[in-house]
Amino acid sequence: MAPGADFESTLPPAPNSSTSATHFDPTAYDTESTCPFCKIAETYGPYDPASPPSPTSPSLCPEATAPSPSTFVVLSTPLLIAFLDILPLSHGHVLLCPRRHAPKLTSVTNPEAAAMGVYLRLLSAALVRVTGVKDWNVVQNNGAAAAQVVPHMHFHIIPRPDLTGRRERFTSTMFGRGQREDLDEEEGALLAERIRDAVGEILREEERDERKKAKL
Amino acid sequence: MAPGADFESTLPPAPNSSTSATHFDPTAYDTESTCPFCKIAETYGPYDPASPPSPTSPSLCPEATAPSPSTFVVLSTPLLIAFLDILPLSHGHVLLCPRRHAPKLTSVTNPEAAAMGVYLRLLSAALVRVTGVKDWNVVQNNGAAAAQVVPHMHFHIIPRPDLTGRRERFTSTMFGRGQREDLDEEEGALLAERIRDAVGEILREEERDERKKAKL
Repeated sequence: MAPGADFESTLPPAPNSSTSATHFDPTAYDTESTCPFCKIAETYGPYDPASPPSPTSPSLCPEATAPSPSTFVVLSTPLLIAFLDILPLSHGHVLLCPRRHAPKLTSVTNPEAAAMGVYLRLLSAALVRVTGVKDWNVVQNNGAAAAQVVPHMHFHIIPRPDLTGRRERFTSTMFGRGQREDLDEEEGALLAERIRDAVGEILREEERDERKKAKL
Repeated sequence: MAPGADFESTLPPAPNSSTSATHFDPTAYDTESTCPFCKIAETYGPYDPASPPSPTSPSLCPEATAPSPSTFVVLSTPLLIAFLDILPLSHGHVLLCPRRHAPKLTSVTNPEAAAMGVYLRLLSAALVRVTGVKDWNVVQNNGAAAAQVVPHMHFHIIPRPDLTGRRERFTSTMFGRGQREDLDEEEGALLAERIRDAVGEILREEERDERKKAKL
Protein backbone atom coordinates (compact mmCIF):
# COMPACT_ATOMS: atom_id res chain seq x y z
CA MET A 1 0.00 0.00 0.00
CA ALA A 2 1.23 3.47 -0.81
CA PRO A 3 2.33 5.55 2.17
CA GLY A 4 -0.29 8.20 2.80
CA ALA A 5 -3.09 5.80 1.91
CA ASP A 6 -3.81 5.76 5.64
CA PHE A 7 -4.53 9.45 5.41
CA GLU A 8 -7.16 8.86 2.77
CA SER A 9 -8.78 6.03 4.65
CA THR A 10 -9.37 8.35 7.62
CA LEU A 11 -11.52 10.68 5.56
CA PRO A 12 -15.30 10.39 6.00
CA PRO A 13 -17.37 9.81 2.86
CA ALA A 14 -17.41 12.86 0.62
CA PRO A 15 -20.65 14.81 0.69
CA ASN A 16 -22.39 15.32 -2.68
CA SER A 17 -20.19 12.63 -4.17
CA SER A 18 -21.34 9.55 -5.97
CA THR A 19 -17.82 8.14 -6.13
CA SER A 20 -17.06 4.98 -4.21
CA ALA A 21 -14.09 4.53 -1.90
CA THR A 22 -12.06 3.08 -4.74
CA HIS A 23 -12.92 6.07 -6.92
CA PHE A 24 -11.95 8.86 -4.52
CA ASP A 25 -12.43 12.18 -6.29
CA PRO A 26 -10.61 14.98 -4.45
CA THR A 27 -12.50 17.67 -6.36
CA ALA A 28 -15.81 16.41 -4.95
CA TYR A 29 -14.49 16.88 -1.44
CA ASP A 30 -14.41 20.06 0.61
CA THR A 31 -11.41 19.30 2.79
CA GLU A 32 -10.27 22.82 3.62
CA SER A 33 -11.05 22.35 7.29
CA THR A 34 -9.06 19.10 7.56
CA CYS A 35 -6.49 19.54 4.78
CA PRO A 36 -2.92 19.09 6.10
CA PHE A 37 -1.50 21.50 3.51
CA CYS A 38 -4.06 24.18 4.38
CA LYS A 39 -2.96 23.81 8.00
CA ILE A 40 0.68 24.32 6.98
CA ALA A 41 -0.24 27.37 4.88
CA GLU A 42 -2.19 28.89 7.80
CA THR A 43 0.60 28.22 10.28
CA TYR A 44 3.50 29.75 8.34
CA GLY A 45 3.19 33.31 7.05
CA PRO A 46 4.96 34.62 3.93
CA TYR A 47 8.52 35.97 4.10
CA ASP A 48 10.83 37.54 1.52
CA PRO A 49 12.45 34.51 -0.22
CA ALA A 50 15.55 36.63 -0.96
CA SER A 51 16.22 37.02 2.77
CA PRO A 52 14.72 34.14 4.74
CA PRO A 53 14.24 34.42 8.53
CA SER A 54 16.81 32.95 10.94
CA PRO A 55 16.37 29.19 11.42
CA THR A 56 15.62 29.86 15.10
CA SER A 57 12.79 32.28 14.25
CA PRO A 58 9.47 31.21 15.82
CA SER A 59 7.90 31.90 12.40
CA LEU A 60 9.63 28.76 11.07
CA CYS A 61 9.25 26.50 14.15
CA PRO A 62 8.77 22.96 12.74
CA GLU A 63 6.64 21.92 15.73
CA ALA A 64 4.11 24.70 15.15
CA THR A 65 1.94 22.22 13.21
CA ALA A 66 1.73 19.81 16.22
CA PRO A 67 -0.02 17.48 16.85
CA SER A 68 0.38 17.02 13.06
CA PRO A 69 3.89 16.03 11.93
CA SER A 70 6.63 18.70 12.04
CA THR A 71 6.87 20.98 9.00
CA PHE A 72 10.14 22.08 7.45
CA VAL A 73 9.34 25.15 5.34
CA VAL A 74 11.72 25.94 2.46
CA LEU A 75 9.78 28.79 0.79
CA SER A 76 6.78 30.90 1.79
CA THR A 77 5.33 33.64 -0.39
CA PRO A 78 1.94 35.38 -0.40
CA LEU A 79 0.65 32.84 -2.97
CA LEU A 80 2.71 29.67 -2.41
CA ILE A 81 4.34 27.52 0.22
CA ALA A 82 6.97 24.76 -0.11
CA PHE A 83 8.21 22.29 2.49
CA LEU A 84 10.02 18.97 2.84
CA ASP A 85 8.02 15.81 2.12
CA ILE A 86 7.78 13.98 5.46
CA LEU A 87 8.10 10.62 3.64
CA PRO A 88 10.85 11.56 1.16
CA LEU A 89 11.59 9.37 -1.86
CA SER A 90 15.10 10.86 -1.80
CA HIS A 91 17.13 13.38 0.21
CA GLY A 92 15.76 16.80 -0.72
CA HIS A 93 12.25 15.71 -1.78
CA VAL A 94 10.23 18.95 -1.66
CA LEU A 95 6.54 19.79 -2.16
CA LEU A 96 5.34 23.12 -3.63
CA CYS A 97 1.68 24.15 -3.48
CA PRO A 98 -0.61 27.17 -3.50
CA ARG A 99 -1.58 28.48 -0.02
CA ARG A 100 -5.21 28.49 -1.06
CA HIS A 101 -6.96 25.12 -1.12
CA ALA A 102 -7.05 23.91 -4.73
CA PRO A 103 -7.71 20.19 -5.30
CA LYS A 104 -6.21 19.92 -8.79
CA LEU A 105 -3.98 21.93 -11.14
CA THR A 106 -7.12 23.10 -12.95
CA SER A 107 -8.39 24.63 -9.68
CA VAL A 108 -5.52 27.13 -9.33
CA THR A 109 -5.65 30.74 -10.55
CA ASN A 110 -3.44 32.02 -13.35
CA PRO A 111 -1.24 34.02 -10.91
CA GLU A 112 -0.78 30.89 -8.76
CA ALA A 113 0.04 28.81 -11.86
CA ALA A 114 2.59 31.37 -13.07
CA ALA A 115 4.19 31.64 -9.62
CA MET A 116 4.47 27.85 -9.38
CA GLY A 117 6.23 27.78 -12.75
CA VAL A 118 8.76 30.33 -11.55
CA TYR A 119 9.37 28.73 -8.15
CA LEU A 120 9.62 25.19 -9.56
CA ARG A 121 12.62 26.45 -11.50
CA LEU A 122 14.10 28.26 -8.50
CA LEU A 123 13.57 25.40 -6.03
CA SER A 124 15.09 22.98 -8.56
CA ALA A 125 18.22 25.14 -8.79
CA ALA A 126 18.38 25.37 -4.98
CA LEU A 127 18.06 21.59 -4.60
CA VAL A 128 20.83 20.93 -7.13
CA ARG A 129 23.06 23.36 -5.21
CA VAL A 130 22.26 21.91 -1.77
CA THR A 131 22.18 18.17 -2.54
CA GLY A 132 24.81 18.11 -5.30
CA VAL A 133 22.45 15.80 -7.22
CA LYS A 134 22.19 17.05 -10.81
CA ASP A 135 19.16 15.07 -11.99
CA TRP A 136 15.61 15.36 -10.67
CA ASN A 137 11.93 14.79 -11.43
CA VAL A 138 9.05 17.21 -11.16
CA VAL A 139 5.74 15.38 -10.66
CA GLN A 140 2.22 16.60 -10.06
CA ASN A 141 -0.63 14.11 -9.67
CA ASN A 142 -4.29 14.98 -10.22
CA GLY A 143 -6.88 12.58 -8.83
CA ALA A 144 -6.82 9.07 -7.40
CA ALA A 145 -6.24 7.37 -10.77
CA ALA A 146 -3.11 9.53 -11.10
CA ALA A 147 -1.89 8.56 -7.57
CA GLN A 148 -2.81 11.84 -5.87
CA VAL A 149 -3.03 11.31 -2.10
CA VAL A 150 -3.42 14.70 -0.41
CA PRO A 151 -6.30 16.51 -2.16
CA HIS A 152 -4.57 19.92 -2.16
CA MET A 153 -2.65 20.18 -5.43
CA HIS A 154 1.14 20.05 -5.08
CA PHE A 155 4.22 19.60 -7.20
CA HIS A 156 6.86 17.10 -6.06
CA ILE A 157 10.49 17.96 -6.75
CA ILE A 158 12.52 14.77 -6.32
CA PRO A 159 16.32 14.66 -6.63
CA ARG A 160 17.50 11.54 -8.49
CA PRO A 161 20.96 10.34 -7.54
CA ASP A 162 22.67 8.22 -10.18
CA LEU A 163 20.76 4.99 -10.67
CA THR A 164 23.26 2.79 -12.50
CA GLY A 165 22.12 -0.76 -11.83
CA ARG A 166 19.12 0.45 -9.86
CA ARG A 167 16.51 0.92 -12.61
CA GLU A 168 14.12 -1.39 -10.84
CA ARG A 169 14.20 0.63 -7.67
CA PHE A 170 13.51 3.87 -9.54
CA THR A 171 10.35 2.55 -11.10
CA SER A 172 9.07 1.03 -7.91
CA THR A 173 9.76 4.08 -5.73
CA MET A 174 8.11 6.53 -8.08
CA PHE A 175 4.77 7.86 -6.82
CA GLY A 176 5.42 6.61 -3.35
CA ARG A 177 4.78 2.97 -4.11
CA GLY A 178 8.25 1.92 -2.99
CA GLN A 179 10.22 2.40 0.18
CA ARG A 180 9.93 5.81 1.78
CA GLU A 181 11.47 6.58 5.12
CA ASP A 182 10.32 9.05 7.75
CA LEU A 183 12.21 12.32 7.57
CA ASP A 184 14.69 12.65 10.44
CA GLU A 185 13.76 15.81 12.42
CA GLU A 186 17.29 17.09 12.93
CA GLU A 187 18.32 16.36 9.36
CA GLY A 188 15.09 17.97 8.13
CA ALA A 189 15.72 21.21 10.03
CA LEU A 190 19.25 21.52 8.64
CA LEU A 191 18.24 20.59 5.09
CA ALA A 192 15.35 23.08 5.08
CA GLU A 193 17.68 25.84 6.33
CA ARG A 194 20.14 25.11 3.53
CA ILE A 195 17.40 25.12 0.88
CA ARG A 196 15.92 28.43 2.15
CA ASP A 197 19.44 29.92 2.09
CA ALA A 198 20.13 28.61 -1.43
CA VAL A 199 16.84 30.06 -2.70
CA GLY A 200 17.86 33.42 -1.21
CA GLU A 201 21.37 33.21 -2.68
CA ILE A 202 20.11 32.38 -6.16
CA LEU A 203 17.51 35.17 -6.09
CA ARG A 204 20.17 37.70 -5.04
CA GLU A 205 22.61 36.41 -7.70
CA GLU A 206 19.98 36.64 -10.43
CA GLU A 207 18.96 40.13 -9.34
CA ARG A 208 22.63 41.19 -9.51
CA ASP A 209 22.92 39.68 -13.00
CA GLU A 210 19.80 41.54 -14.11
CA ARG A 211 21.19 44.83 -12.81
CA LYS A 212 24.47 44.20 -14.64
CA LYS A 213 22.63 43.46 -17.89
CA ALA A 214 20.50 46.59 -17.50
CA LYS A 215 23.68 48.67 -17.20
CA LEU A 216 25.21 47.28 -20.42
CA MET B 1 14.45 -0.56 -23.11
CA ALA B 2 12.58 2.69 -22.92
CA PRO B 3 11.23 4.04 -26.22
CA GLY B 4 13.39 6.91 -27.31
CA ALA B 5 16.54 5.26 -25.99
CA ASP B 6 17.46 4.73 -29.62
CA PHE B 7 17.51 8.47 -30.05
CA GLU B 8 20.11 8.86 -27.32
CA SER B 9 22.29 6.09 -28.64
CA THR B 10 22.55 7.87 -31.99
CA LEU B 11 24.17 10.92 -30.41
CA PRO B 12 27.95 11.24 -30.80
CA PRO B 13 30.00 11.70 -27.60
CA ALA B 14 29.33 15.09 -26.02
CA PRO B 15 32.13 17.61 -26.47
CA ASN B 16 33.65 19.06 -23.29
CA SER B 17 31.99 16.35 -21.29
CA SER B 18 33.71 13.93 -18.97
CA THR B 19 30.56 11.88 -18.53
CA SER B 20 30.51 8.35 -19.88
CA ALA B 21 27.79 6.91 -22.09
CA THR B 22 25.98 5.58 -19.03
CA HIS B 23 26.07 9.02 -17.43
CA PHE B 24 24.65 11.05 -20.30
CA ASP B 25 24.39 14.68 -19.18
CA PRO B 26 22.09 16.64 -21.51
CA THR B 27 23.35 19.96 -20.13
CA ALA B 28 26.89 19.21 -21.34
CA TYR B 29 25.58 18.74 -24.85
CA ASP B 30 24.87 21.38 -27.44
CA THR B 31 22.13 19.67 -29.39
CA GLU B 32 20.35 22.66 -30.84
CA SER B 33 21.26 21.68 -34.38
CA THR B 34 19.95 18.11 -34.01
CA CYS B 35 17.28 18.56 -31.32
CA PRO B 36 13.89 17.23 -32.48
CA PHE B 37 11.98 19.74 -30.33
CA CYS B 38 14.03 22.68 -31.71
CA LYS B 39 13.06 21.46 -35.18
CA ILE B 40 9.38 21.46 -34.21
CA ALA B 41 9.69 24.97 -32.69
CA GLU B 42 11.37 26.27 -35.86
CA THR B 43 8.78 24.66 -38.13
CA TYR B 44 5.62 25.95 -36.45
CA GLY B 45 5.26 29.68 -35.78
CA PRO B 46 3.22 31.16 -32.93
CA TYR B 47 -0.52 31.79 -33.27
CA ASP B 48 -3.13 33.33 -30.97
CA PRO B 49 -4.20 30.41 -28.71
CA ALA B 50 -7.63 32.02 -28.29
CA SER B 51 -8.30 31.63 -32.03
CA PRO B 52 -6.28 28.77 -33.49
CA PRO B 53 -5.78 28.46 -37.27
CA SER B 54 -8.01 26.15 -39.33
CA PRO B 55 -6.88 22.50 -39.17
CA THR B 56 -6.20 22.64 -42.92
CA SER B 57 -3.88 25.66 -42.55
CA PRO B 58 -0.39 24.96 -43.97
CA SER B 59 0.98 26.52 -40.75
CA LEU B 60 -0.16 23.40 -38.86
CA CYS B 61 0.67 20.75 -41.51
CA PRO B 62 1.76 17.64 -39.52
CA GLU B 63 4.10 16.52 -42.30
CA ALA B 64 6.07 19.77 -42.25
CA THR B 65 8.63 18.10 -39.95
CA ALA B 66 9.32 15.31 -42.49
CA PRO B 67 11.48 13.25 -42.71
CA SER B 68 11.11 13.39 -38.92
CA PRO B 69 7.82 11.99 -37.57
CA SER B 70 4.64 14.06 -38.09
CA THR B 71 3.94 16.74 -35.50
CA PHE B 72 0.49 17.49 -34.10
CA VAL B 73 0.68 20.96 -32.59
CA VAL B 74 -1.84 21.78 -29.86
CA LEU B 75 -0.50 25.20 -28.74
CA SER B 76 2.08 27.60 -30.15
CA THR B 77 2.96 30.92 -28.51
CA PRO B 78 5.98 33.22 -28.85
CA LEU B 79 7.67 31.44 -25.89
CA LEU B 80 6.22 27.92 -25.85
CA ILE B 81 5.06 25.07 -28.05
CA ALA B 82 3.00 21.98 -27.20
CA PHE B 83 2.28 18.91 -29.30
CA LEU B 84 1.11 15.29 -29.04
CA ASP B 85 3.65 12.73 -27.82
CA ILE B 86 4.28 10.42 -30.77
CA LEU B 87 4.55 7.44 -28.41
CA PRO B 88 1.65 8.26 -26.08
CA LEU B 89 1.27 6.56 -22.70
CA SER B 90 -2.45 7.32 -22.97
CA HIS B 91 -4.89 9.03 -25.35
CA GLY B 92 -4.17 12.78 -25.06
CA HIS B 93 -0.55 12.54 -23.88
CA VAL B 94 0.85 16.03 -24.59
CA LEU B 95 4.31 17.61 -24.32
CA LEU B 96 4.84 21.30 -23.47
CA CYS B 97 8.26 22.94 -23.87
CA PRO B 98 9.94 26.30 -24.42
CA ARG B 99 10.70 27.13 -28.07
CA ARG B 100 14.25 28.00 -27.13
CA HIS B 101 16.61 25.07 -26.50
CA ALA B 102 16.86 24.56 -22.73
CA PRO B 103 18.17 21.20 -21.53
CA LYS B 104 16.70 21.26 -18.02
CA LEU B 105 14.10 23.19 -16.02
CA THR B 106 16.92 25.23 -14.50
CA SER B 107 17.96 26.38 -18.02
CA VAL B 108 14.70 28.20 -18.74
CA THR B 109 14.13 31.92 -18.17
CA ASN B 110 11.66 33.24 -15.62
CA PRO B 111 9.18 34.34 -18.32
CA GLU B 112 9.35 30.85 -19.88
CA ALA B 113 8.87 29.23 -16.45
CA ALA B 114 5.87 31.45 -15.67
CA ALA B 115 4.30 30.80 -19.08
CA MET B 116 4.74 27.05 -18.67
CA GLY B 117 2.98 27.25 -15.29
CA VAL B 118 0.02 29.04 -16.87
CA TYR B 119 -0.23 26.78 -19.95
CA LEU B 120 0.15 23.55 -17.93
CA ARG B 121 -3.06 24.55 -16.18
CA LEU B 122 -4.80 25.51 -19.42
CA LEU B 123 -3.72 22.42 -21.37
CA SER B 124 -4.80 20.23 -18.43
CA ALA B 125 -8.27 21.80 -18.53
CA ALA B 126 -8.41 21.32 -22.31
CA LEU B 127 -7.39 17.65 -22.03
CA VAL B 128 -10.04 16.94 -19.39
CA ARG B 129 -12.64 18.55 -21.67
CA VAL B 130 -11.54 16.69 -24.81
CA THR B 131 -10.79 13.22 -23.41
CA GLY B 132 -13.40 13.17 -20.62
CA VAL B 133 -10.68 11.70 -18.38
CA LYS B 134 -10.72 13.58 -15.06
CA ASP B 135 -7.37 12.44 -13.61
CA TRP B 136 -3.92 13.13 -15.00
CA ASN B 137 -0.20 13.39 -14.23
CA VAL B 138 2.17 16.23 -14.97
CA VAL B 139 5.76 14.98 -15.19
CA GLN B 140 9.01 16.71 -16.06
CA ASN B 141 12.27 14.76 -16.06
CA ASN B 142 15.71 16.38 -15.73
CA GLY B 143 18.73 14.29 -16.70
CA ALA B 144 19.33 10.64 -17.51
CA ALA B 145 19.03 9.47 -13.90
CA ALA B 146 15.56 11.02 -13.89
CA ALA B 147 14.59 9.25 -17.17
CA GLN B 148 14.91 12.30 -19.45
CA VAL B 149 15.33 11.14 -23.05
CA VAL B 150 15.08 14.21 -25.33
CA PRO B 151 17.52 16.82 -23.95
CA HIS B 152 15.18 19.79 -24.52
CA MET B 153 13.20 20.26 -21.33
CA HIS B 154 9.52 19.37 -21.56
CA PHE B 155 6.52 18.73 -19.37
CA HIS B 156 4.42 15.63 -20.00
CA ILE B 157 0.67 15.91 -19.41
CA ILE B 158 -0.71 12.38 -19.24
CA PRO B 159 -4.43 11.62 -18.86
CA ARG B 160 -5.03 8.70 -16.47
CA PRO B 161 -8.20 6.76 -17.13
CA ASP B 162 -9.55 4.84 -14.15
CA LEU B 163 -7.08 2.17 -13.10
CA THR B 164 -9.16 -0.13 -10.93
CA GLY B 165 -7.39 -3.47 -11.01
CA ARG B 166 -4.62 -2.09 -13.20
CA ARG B 167 -2.19 -0.65 -10.60
CA GLU B 168 0.64 -2.74 -11.96
CA ARG B 169 0.25 -1.37 -15.43
CA PHE B 170 0.26 2.21 -14.15
CA THR B 171 3.61 1.82 -12.44
CA SER B 172 5.21 0.04 -15.35
CA THR B 173 4.01 2.48 -18.00
CA MET B 174 5.12 5.57 -16.10
CA PHE B 175 8.16 7.23 -17.64
CA GLY B 176 7.81 5.32 -20.83
CA ARG B 177 9.13 2.05 -19.51
CA GLY B 178 5.95 0.19 -20.34
CA GLN B 179 3.96 -0.27 -23.49
CA ARG B 180 3.64 2.79 -25.70
CA GLU B 181 2.00 2.67 -29.08
CA ASP B 182 2.72 4.79 -32.11
CA LEU B 183 0.27 7.64 -32.50
CA ASP B 184 -2.18 6.99 -35.34
CA GLU B 185 -1.83 9.86 -37.85
CA GLU B 186 -5.54 10.37 -38.51
CA GLU B 187 -6.46 10.10 -34.85
CA GLY B 188 -3.61 12.47 -33.99
CA ALA B 189 -4.79 15.14 -36.40
CA LEU B 190 -8.35 15.05 -35.04
CA LEU B 191 -7.24 14.96 -31.39
CA ALA B 192 -4.85 17.90 -31.88
CA GLU B 193 -7.61 19.93 -33.53
CA ARG B 194 -9.97 19.24 -30.61
CA ILE B 195 -7.31 20.24 -28.06
CA ARG B 196 -6.46 23.48 -29.92
CA ASP B 197 -10.18 24.29 -30.06
CA ALA B 198 -10.69 23.50 -26.36
CA VAL B 199 -7.72 25.74 -25.42
CA GLY B 200 -9.31 28.54 -27.46
CA GLU B 201 -12.75 27.96 -25.91
CA ILE B 202 -11.43 27.99 -22.36
CA LEU B 203 -9.39 31.15 -22.97
CA ARG B 204 -12.44 32.92 -24.38
CA GLU B 205 -14.65 31.70 -21.50
CA GLU B 206 -12.14 32.88 -18.90
CA GLU B 207 -11.77 36.24 -20.60
CA ARG B 208 -15.55 36.64 -20.56
CA ASP B 209 -15.63 35.74 -16.85
CA GLU B 210 -12.92 38.31 -16.15
CA ARG B 211 -14.86 41.00 -17.97
CA LYS B 212 -18.02 40.11 -16.01
CA LYS B 213 -16.12 40.32 -12.72
CA ALA B 214 -14.61 43.67 -13.70
CA LYS B 215 -18.12 45.06 -14.30
CA LEU B 216 -19.42 44.00 -10.86
